[in-house]
Formats: sequence, structure tokens, C-alpha cells
Amino acid sequence: MPETTPDSRTDSTAPQAKPRASQGRRAVISREDLISAALALVGPNRSVSTLSLREVAREAGIAPNSFYRHFRDIDELAVTLIDEAGSALRKIIGGARTRAVSGKSVVRGSIESVMEQLNGEQKFLHLLMREGTVGSNAFKQAVEKQLSFFEEELCTDLIRLADINKHPICEPESVAKAITRLIFAQGAAIADLPEDQRDAAAEQMMLMVRMILVGSQTMASRRPPL
Amino acid sequence: MPETTPDSRTDSTAPQAKPRASQGRRAVISREDLISAALALVGPNRSVSTLSLREVAREAGIAPNSFYRHFRDIDELAVTLIDEAGSALRKIIGGARTRAVSGKSVVRGSIESVMEQLNGEQKFLHLLMREGTVGSNAFKQAVEKQLSFFEEELCTDLIRLADINKHPICEPESVAKAITRLIFAQGAAIADLPEDQRDAAAEQMMLMVRMILVGSQTMASRRPPL
Repeated sequence: MPETTPDSRTDSTAPQAKPRASQGRRAVISREDLISAALALVGPNRSVSTLSLREVAREAGIAPNSFYRHFRDIDELAVTLIDEAGSALRKIIGGARTRAVSGKSVVRGSIESVMEQLNGEQKFLHLLMREGTVGSNAFKQAVEKQLSFFEEELCTDLIRLADINKHPICEPESVAKAITRLIFAQGAAIADLPEDQRDAAAEQMMLMVRMILVGSQTMASRRPPL
Repeated sequence: MPETTPDSRTDSTAPQAKPRASQGRRAVISREDLISAALALVGPNRSVSTLSLREVAREAGIAPNSFYRHFRDIDELAVTLIDEAGSALRKIIGGARTRAVSGKSVVRGSIESVMEQLNGEQKFLHLLMREGTVGSNAFKQAVEKQLSFFEEELCTDLIRLADINKHPICEPESVAKAITRLIFAQGAAIADLPEDQRDAAAEQMMLMVRMILVGSQTMASRRPPL
């Protein structure tokens, strides 16, 4: 983290963007370098949606103008971060799901892999979970799109498992949505907890997910057959 | 941005918003004026946690130094906004709850009053729902505290109603937490929807809440008596 606090949000009189002394400005920089620079700036106290182009350029050690070789604007970089975070996360959870067979172990398997990631070094997951409902429209749509991908995949899994287990559920789309939103709403809060409290919080999350599933099964069993 | 600041609070005691150009910097300003200025700056694309002191002072038409007569720093103002939003919201929902008697109508009553507020002019509710998991630690704790208040009140209600209805629920604290987090995670997204889609989204939210309640009841009924 650079020592300068991010007050460049709206202020055109932001502190001088000094190139980092040790390094000077780099001549060549890749798209990935800019993504890494942005990732280094965000964190529990800082949303992706508040990044400024100048700041990211400074962190990456390039002139602000060079930024445009890779991204149209800062918003495009923010959307890219969210998209990459989403696809990394879906890969992880997809692995946990395909290994699972029973309904119960899908829940446990998925939440455990989310927790493993939250405890690890990978920043993408924190990023996506923290980011919510404030930011440019393009940014919010990017977050929403990633959540929808999750919901669709989870919904497919829920239907498949309900079929295998002969335990029908009611309104699988709403079940998938409730579970996804809950996990995302809680995930970042859990990541901020001291390590010795995370397991208990993860257990509580599993209980909540189980309530949604059991509720949906109970409601399905109460429905009169068509 | 300072020109685009209609004071949209419904509060009838809101200070007179006189044209600032004719007035220059104001000599005397209240705490409420600063709160109004901050509220005018935040919105669906802007989080409270990104406000700068300079900006709020400009919006309120005062010199930055005058800000310190009312708040220690910008963080204290942000925390105040969250606290006021929380207490306004609890008042509204508390009203809906005390009027309700059966478990079902508590859910419907509470969600309907939340939706009414989201459709209305009141900015506090949007503010609290949008704000999430990014910002200073003081800010995040303020959001967390308001959510916990909700959970405690809802939990008390759930226990009371389970008793009245002779329909025990399992783990009422987790039920209250799941419902609160879900409503807050979804609330801001619903407020951003076009008006003709909000009712359907609110119905889906009620279905999700019902699943949690039914799941908890089913799990309670499966438990062997102690």
C-alpha cells in the first residue's frame, strides 16, 4: 500500500502523483500489472468502485496516459476485476460441487471451499464478496452478473440433486438466489473476523443454508400435486 | 457536484435550502445541515464511506474548518448517518411488527413496510441497505451494530410468535440473522429496479423468508425432545 491516502476521488487538486522513487516510471507494462496494482490498493477498507485511474497508474509505476493502452477507463478495469474474481470463484466452487453427491455434502463442500479461499491469500474472493451495491452502473451490473452465474449453476445442481435424492424442492430459482445472496452477504464479514471465530461463523452459515433447503423441501411436500 | 443538490429528505423540519450562490459561505450551520449535505451527495453510485470532508463542507456552503464544530472527522459524520438511518428504519419496522399478530403477517407486514420506504422519498433506508462491507472500521462497525439491533428485535419477535402459535422454531438467532442479512442484501438491489418489477422482487423476498422460517420449524419438529 502506498502511503498516500486515497483522496483523489473527486478532488482535482489531488496530491502530486510522484513516480515511485526507487523504480521510476516503467516503459512497458501489461494488463496484468495494472490488475495487480489495483488489487494492491483495494481491501477491507476500500472498494474497487472508488479506485481512481491516477492512483492505479501511480501504484503500477506508469504515467496516467499509459493506462489507456489497456483499459478504456477506470470503470473498465473495475469491471474486469469483478469478472476475473467471479470466474476464479466459480472454478473453485464448481470443483467442490462436482465432487459432491448428496445434497448435504454439496452445501458443506461449497461453503468449505469458500472458507478455505477466504482464509487463503487469494484476494479475488474477498473482492467479489465485499463489493456490493454501490458504484457505477457498469460496475454494479458486473457484480450482479457474477452473482447470477452462481445462482444459475447452483439452481442446476439443486434440481439435479433433488432428482437423485427423490426429495423435491419448491422454487429452486428462489432457493439458489437466497443461498447465493446470503453467502455473499456473509462471506466478507466472516473474512474480517479473527481466525478463531471463523469456523463458528461458517457453521452458522451452513445452518442457514440448510434451513432454506429444508424449508423449500417442506413447502414442496405440502403442495397439492397438480 | 454541488449544484445538483435538491434536498430530497421528507423531513418537514429540514433546513431551508436557499440558493447558495446568492449567499456565499454561511456563517452559521447546524449539525443537521451537514447531515443533509452528506445525504445529498450519496446515492446508488456513491457510498457514504467515500465522502470527503472538503466535499461535504462545499455542499453545505461552509469553510472546511467549520466542519469540526460539529464532527471530529468525516468518519464520525458517516457513522452518524448510519446510526440515524438505523434508528429511523427500526421505528418504521417496529410499528409494522407490533401491529402484526401471526407469524405470516409479521413477515409480510415488515417486508411491505420496507418496500414502502424504498419506494418513498426517504433516503435513510436506501443508505443503510446499500452500505455494506467496505469502509473504515468505525463505519463497518456502525453498519454491523444496526444490523445486530434488527436481528435482536426480530429474534425476540420470532420467539414470542413461535410461542403464541405453538409452532417452535430451531435456532431463532440464526433465523433472525439469515432473514435480516437477506433483506439487507436484497433491499438496495430492489430499490434500483424499475418500479414495475419491484413487487415481484418483494414477493420473491417473502418467499425466501418463508423458506427460512418453514425450514427452521421443520428442523425443530425433527429434533428429539430433550
